[in-house]
Amino acid sequence: MQFLSDNAAAVHPRVWDAMRAADAADAPYDGDRLSHRLDDAFGELFGRECAAIWVATGTAANCLALATLVQPHGGVVCHSEAHIEMDEGGAPGFYLHGAKLILAGGEGAKLDPGTIRTAIDPIRDDVHQVQPHAISVTQASEYGLCYRPDELAAIAGLARERGLGLHVDGARFANAVAFLGCSAAAAAGPADALSFGCIKNGAMSAEAVVFFDPAAADLARYRRKRAGHLQSKGRFLAAQVLAMIEDGLWLDNARAANTAAREIAAACGDRLMHPVEANELFVRLTEQERTVLRAQGFGFYDWGRDAARFVTAWNSDPNAVSALARAISGL
Amino acid sequence: MQFLSDNAAAVHPRVWDAMRAADAADAPYDGDRLSHRLDDAFGELFGRECAAIWVATGTAANCLALATLVQPHGGVVCHSEAHIEMDEGGAPGFYLHGAKLILAGGEGAKLDPGTIRTAIDPIRDDVHQVQPHAISVTQASEYGLCYRPDELAAIAGLARERGLGLHVDGARFANAVAFLGCSAAAAAGPADALSFGCIKNGAMSAEAVVFFDPAAADLARYRRKRAGHLQSKGRFLAAQVLAMIEDGLWLDNARAANTAAREIAAACGDRLMHPVEANELFVRLTEQERTVLRAQGFGFYDWGRDAARFVTAWNSDPNAVSALARAISGL
Amino acid sequence: MQFLSDNAAAVHPRVWDAMRAADAADAPYDGDRLSHRLDDAFGELFGRECAAIWVATGTAANCLALATLVQPHGGVVCHSEAHIEMDEGGAPGFYLHGAKLILAGGEGAKLDPGTIRTAIDPIRDDVHQVQPHAISVTQASEYGLCYRPDELAAIAGLARERGLGLHVDGARFANAVAFLGCSAAAAAGPADALSFGCIKNGAMSAEAVVFFDPAAADLARYRRKRAGHLQSKGRFLAAQVLAMIEDGLWLDNARAANTAAREIAAACGDRLMHPVEANELFVRLTEQERTVLRAQGFGFYDWGRDAARFVTAWNSDPNAVSALARAISGL
Amino acid sequence: MQFLSDNAAAVHPRVWDAMRAADAADAPYDGDRLSHRLDDAFGELFGRECAAIWVATGTAANCLALATLVQPHGGVVCHSEAHIEMDEGGAPGFYLHGAKLILAGGEGAKLDPGTIRTAIDPIRDDVHQVQPHAISVTQASEYGLCYRPDELAAIAGLARERGLGLHVDGARFANAVAFLGCSAAAAAGPADALSFGCIKNGAMSAEAVVFFDPAAADLARYRRKRAGHLQSKGRFLAAQVLAMIEDGLWLDNARAANTAAREIAAACGDRLMHPVEANELFVRLTEQERTVLRAQGFGFYDWGRDAARFVTAWNSDPNAVSALARAISGL
Repeated sequence: MQFLSDNAAAVHPRVWDAMRAADAADAPYDGDRLSHRLDDAFGELFGRECAAIWVATGTAANCLALATLVQPHGGVVCHSEAHIEMDEGGAPGFYLHGAKLILAGGEGAKLDPGTIRTAIDPIRDDVHQVQPHAISVTQASEYGLCYRPDELAAIAGLARERGLGLHVDGARFANAVAFLGCSAAAAAGPADALSFGCIKNGAMSAEAVVFFDPAAADLARYRRKRAGHLQSKGRFLAAQVLAMIEDGLWLDNARAANTAAREIAAACGDRLMHPVEANELFVRLTEQERTVLRAQGFGFYDWGRDAARFVTAWNSDPNAVSALARAISGL
Repeated sequence: MQFLSDNAAAVHPRVWDAMRAADAADAPYDGDRLSHRLDDAFGELFGRECAAIWVATGTAANCLALATLVQPHGGVVCHSEAHIEMDEGGAPGFYLHGAKLILAGGEGAKLDPGTIRTAIDPIRDDVHQVQPHAISVTQASEYGLCYRPDELAAIAGLARERGLGLHVDGARFANAVAFLGCSAAAAAGPADALSFGCIKNGAMSAEAVVFFDPAAADLARYRRKRAGHLQSKGRFLAAQVLAMIEDGLWLDNARAANTAAREIAAACGDRLMHPVEANELFVRLTEQERTVLRAQGFGFYDWGRDAARFVTAWNSDPNAVSALARAISGL
Repeated sequence: MQFLSDNAAAVHPRVWDAMRAADAADAPYDGDRLSHRLDDAFGELFGRECAAIWVATGTAANCLALATLVQPHGGVVCHSEAHIEMDEGGAPGFYLHGAKLILAGGEGAKLDPGTIRTAIDPIRDDVHQVQPHAISVTQASEYGLCYRPDELAAIAGLARERGLGLHVDGARFANAVAFLGCSAAAAAGPADALSFGCIKNGAMSAEAVVFFDPAAADLARYRRKRAGHLQSKGRFLAAQVLAMIEDGLWLDNARAANTAAREIAAACGDRLMHPVEANELFVRLTEQERTVLRAQGFGFYDWGRDAARFVTAWNSDPNAVSALARAISGL
Repeated sequence: MQFLSDNAAAVHPRVWDAMRAADAADAPYDGDRLSHRLDDAFGELFGRECAAIWVATGTAANCLALATLVQPHGGVVCHSEAHIEMDEGGAPGFYLHGAKLILAGGEGAKLDPGTIRTAIDPIRDDVHQVQPHAISVTQASEYGLCYRPDELAAIAGLARERGLGLHVDGARFANAVAFLGCSAAAAAGPADALSFGCIKNGAMSAEAVVFFDPAAADLARYRRKRAGHLQSKGRFLAAQVLAMIEDGLWLDNARAANTAAREIAAACGDRLMHPVEANELFVRLTEQERTVLRAQGFGFYDWGRDAARFVTAWNSDPNAVSALARAISGL
């Protein structure tokens, strides 16, 4: 009964099927027929022209997206608990050639115009201080909270006013859309680039980076190759992404994960550190309580000394979910 | 009847099976049981202690290997037609933070101590010129030629004498071993790090980097994450690599490809630009002759104006191979 | 009556004399006789073997020093108000190839083992988080406070325990030594590398980087050239550095600046935000008070909304110093 | 009687005077009155709007110029014997974040459209190969040869046609103008950026980078700070540059050096490996002949096994020059 993370979950059968179907000779790299369908598939999903490329990890997706928005001498405003700051092993420093992450605050790992201004307004407009070139937000956030369309619009407005690019880290974008009940376009807001997560949501090894400026995608294609991320059998990555988005699998899977999270959340009451909007739960639990849960067979990470993190996935076992809810209620 | 490249060939059924078998919950990244087996599996293959990591592309494999041997202000001696110089989109410049490729010559894209000395002896030992830190050889070479163990030993001797690291780009290492009829260890020579190719040889999306110094592997693990190459479902890459090496599939597949190449080579006679040792053929063919072959349904790349490159793969259709041999004979 | 900064002060006559004396033909770069004297001159100053190189700016000095201690995938622990974080335009990101500055707190921009531990203890020892490779302290700190030898020893002890290098940014090292009344060696503590500032203290365009490990200096020499900092007429930089240190000019100048700062400090009473140990004063002054002072001809920077920063220099005019002290007293 | 290089020559008295005159309090960095005059001074010299910044070395000048024209994933076409390839310690790799130098040929280290095409036409227009972003030529070339205005126009035409930037490394630009007898503008051609050398021509520690696109200069200012090249007492660099260009000193000095070189050249006859246009002579001399010259007190570098390089400077002693000419004639 694992609730450690969604990032190592099994691969969805329809993703497997799509991969098997891709196992015929085709052009190498991204010259195959499946890769060629990505732009249109995402264009349809977002209702506007866009260009999309596959890549094997969320870290690479975020970094390739940001590399089109940030020069080496610039900076990226992100939350101090953003994945790019905390958990990517310095990859932004590598991909952006030493550009700086400019850290801002905000409840639940969500930025807002106020916290962004607090971070960037003190930056003197001179060469001695690193100037911001872009803003990166995570949808849903690292604490599982979702930006509402008007919140994104406000951030985008500030970005435009200051001449900054806007990137959305959508490692759990599907969960955000499922929660918000809005269109993909509304959940992405007026972003320049979006890391569209698939791996945590049933794929094996493919994320997409969606560029709303096709010229940026051209640039990213060079950078992808340069980063050793242009796989020769790219058709297998394209197949995964298409399997996720072409028949709504991405939303179905995210809804399943969110539903499971909500069921557990209902049992947590005041224990919840953050509202549960997507598929992550941060739950106040003493060490003793965590020991009790683990003794019952539940797997999860400690979150500091007095809490735990539970993550549901597309394939969370309903019985395990109910069992966990009961177990927490019974503490 | 495609002979364009082995790099987009189908995935071997046993690799598929291994991947399917890996689709059970396990630890993320490289914490799973399959990834943990890599060091031992390669240790057995090479008969010495080694540490191995998976990575999704040969470009990343080469660059991560070199990053353990070369500092940013140094250089890598490689052949002027080496893959790292010609076809990796500047990835070495990215991964090595601007280190330089120091180009050397040699017949058939093979370096030898003489050509290496010609490249590095004129480098003044001062800070104005980039000093070599490592040598990279390709086994089999970009023209399909294999370094004999004594040739590798001679290069390694020079490397040791000059304090240089030694890297082997083994994108087609299996084909080299199959040709040489020696052990994997003998075909790798006294290298510090080896890019052990699987993708061109029946895998989908996994190569291995084998470090003969475990400390270098530790370093490479940080760099792999930093490059966005640490996949969360890494077990699927480990499964591919293990499927290739644990029951000799790597050699079986390479032998099949080499055999196909030899059959075609026998029909080429004086047309061959290089001896055919692995699975690539560079064949003198006029434009008209190439047109004739294409009209018969054969796919291949032009190689300059007066030649063509044919590559066989683990799954080259014997009928197509024989047909191509006959067609060339009949020109 | 300028108290804006010491960084644009006039050049000391003895520095001018030394530069003029260097205007004879000699070997280029650092092959000249003056550059050759640096190692010994600093060896004498610090009472231990060391290797020293000149460089044109403090930013380059800090970065070249750190480049010998930090790998691209690592991090440097520094104060959140350290010059390398706040005022070097992202130079550490450039020179360290994307390594991270890991920010720590501490009163008066001084680190201590407790604040360092607070910053690094939460870093998980895995590849997902950037690991610290070095600590950088500023002597005197950005608020003009000096590390006592036992404070440096405690930090160095922690560094050793964790396997971290130790760098001292000594842009105002002379002022610190003048205040502490100790030896240069005691004020540098068990550092691996020291940026020895001269420019704020009467030189024109030369700082020194002192390496207590000669091998690190060898590395830094390659990096200096690679950064375009190896001047062909390097003898003029060596001349400046030698003029500063060989006859005690560095200490005389620093004492003059510190004395001037103390005189002003004595007039500030409770207005002082930090004790005045070196040559910088951070003084609580309302906007109206600052207007009054400026109307009297005093130049200085605002420090936030309710304070001002005054910096004295080796050549601060005693009359101006006394006048400023009186003016502040009279507010 | 030194003819080793012009790069370590004495500083011209008028440069000294200008530096001394700059030793009054002024704004730090490039905020001083002298630095502010650079744009206009170069604007007048080149008869068009331009923006100019000072920097301490030619290596930094070249790299900062190129950084405005080349992205990290791109390349710079330069001669295989260009200074940026041969003698800058890998600085372009550092400043351009791993961009590639694409080497081309040409007599006397001069590129021409034909050699450039030979280098870039084989580059496939795909992400696997590094695409050229700029061309860099050296005026006068590394063998002392000068591009005629029509030669520059032809190269610039090709650059425009291929969408490439054009950089001129003018470490000895003054010598080229002196030889060509044309305007500075004509000798720079339609370049985007020019490294305007002063140090080899009588200055101490200041070169200028001239941008014919002011936006590029803005970018370069950030990169200059980031590279640790923004000196706080920048007025001393501005003073040097202005002293060189405002009263024609740059041309007077270059003419003196060229005249000296011509006198020696006249004595060399068939021994000259290249026509002598600027202030460098490459002279066929056996080892024995070089021994004879050195025994007479002449200093110079060997150039391979059978030749020597002599460089004259703004202050070459006329007696020494005549003596060298006689000595060579008498061999």
